[in-house]
Amino acid sequence: MVLLVHHTTSPFARKIRLQMSEKKMLFVLKEEEPWNLSPDLYKLNPAGELPVFLNDGNVIVGHYAISEFLEETQTETPLIYGPAKQKAEIRRMIDWFDNKFYREVYQNIVFEKVNKRFSSGMAPDSKTLKIGLNNIGYHLEYIEWLLSKHQYLVGEELTLADLTAAAHFSVIDYLGDVPWDEFPASKLWYSKIKSRPSFKDLLKDTIKGILPAKNYTNLDF
Amino acid sequence: MVLLVHHTTSPFARKIRLQMSEKKMLFVLKEEEPWNLSPDLYKLNPAGELPVFLNDGNVIVGHYAISEFLEETQTETPLIYGPAKQKAEIRRMIDWFDNKFYREVYQNIVFEKVNKRFSSGMAPDSKTLKIGLNNIGYHLEYIEWLLSKHQYLVGEELTLADLTAAAHFSVIDYLGDVPWDEFPASKLWYSKIKSRPSFKDLLKDTIKGILPAKNYTNLDF
Repeated sequence: MVLLVHHTTSPFARKIRLQMSEKKMLFVLKEEEPWNLSPDLYKLNPAGELPVFLNDGNVIVGHYAISEFLEETQTETPLIYGPAKQKAEIRRMIDWFDNKFYREVYQNIVFEKVNKRFSSGMAPDSKTLKIGLNNIGYHLEYIEWLLSKHQYLVGEELTLADLTAAAHFSVIDYLGDVPWDEFPASKLWYSKIKSRPSFKDLLKDTIKGILPAKNYTNLDF
Repeated sequence: MVLLVHHTTSPFARKIRLQMSEKKMLFVLKEEEPWNLSPDLYKLNPAGELPVFLNDGNVIVGHYAISEFLEETQTETPLIYGPAKQKAEIRRMIDWFDNKFYREVYQNIVFEKVNKRFSSGMAPDSKTLKIGLNNIGYHLEYIEWLLSKHQYLVGEELTLADLTAAAHFSVIDYLGDVPWDEFPASKLWYSKIKSRPSFKDLLKDTIKGILPAKNYTNLDF
């Protein structure tokens, strides 16, 4: 049995949960608060980051190592596939969300609204929030452009790029900060991914003390 | 022929250069200044990041996609190899340097000393610099511990983890900010990697207007 140490606000853990669910893997979750990590977590991962994957004494640390490990060992439903050039494009988009989107959107919105509140009790800085909300528009514009060429982010089929992107958006969506109505192609794309069985579990998540936005669980938002 | 768009201050580009050299690939370099990227670079990579890999009309963008593409297509000298668990450990260490070290050391030292100077003409902030210099000690302590168990970062042979780590250290080393003498195992490890033929080219690099520290090119530092 696989155990994933995660937190619902971690887009990286959400990505791995989606990837495992798409691969029909069974797993249990254990929560660690990013603003209050236990000494046990540091023993598993000296980098002090989520998620951590445990299976039969194997400890795999960090979303990059875990996602590639899953692709290598769980080959039945590949999510990074196709010719080498297509795989490179899938990884480019994964990187886009795990680094660029994370830095430009997540850190400005989720850190301000959630992490700051629980770590120091401080209110979000409105200037930083505004930068994050502004940045999300640029990312959605780029997605609209990609979706004008094909149904999914890389080609006509679902890949780990879509799951990664949706994982990141879903945390922001919990807070109600994604302006879906201005970006119809992105909205349709997200509603397709949100309707997948692998997504169900994410929609049940709650952040202690913060109610989800009213459309978070709504498949027809 | 492969063309790599790079800058000598980019540890990610240095990693790919080392990886290609170890694989005995021929390539030419084209420089782009990170603080003054051309519109052409944005056409190749809308994320505006280095390096970019071009080969026969293939454009591969970002160090994650490029390094995995090279492992997949240039199989003669594998640098991410072994059982799935070992590959995960190699990727964990790659991730450590590309994200944790980059954030905690590079951004505090190289951004302050180099990027800031060329982008705004401003002097480095001494507080930020001090944080970076302090952090590098923690990273070296961790490396000493890893090297107490085996000769290279992951096991007894060179992997992409070593090249990635050395790529990151080499930029800081150019500025003379790595306290090698306090960390003998790390120093020995770095001197071994620095002596490899693949490293030669990096030691010829210069940052315009900033002389390398006196031991940067010295194999017996």
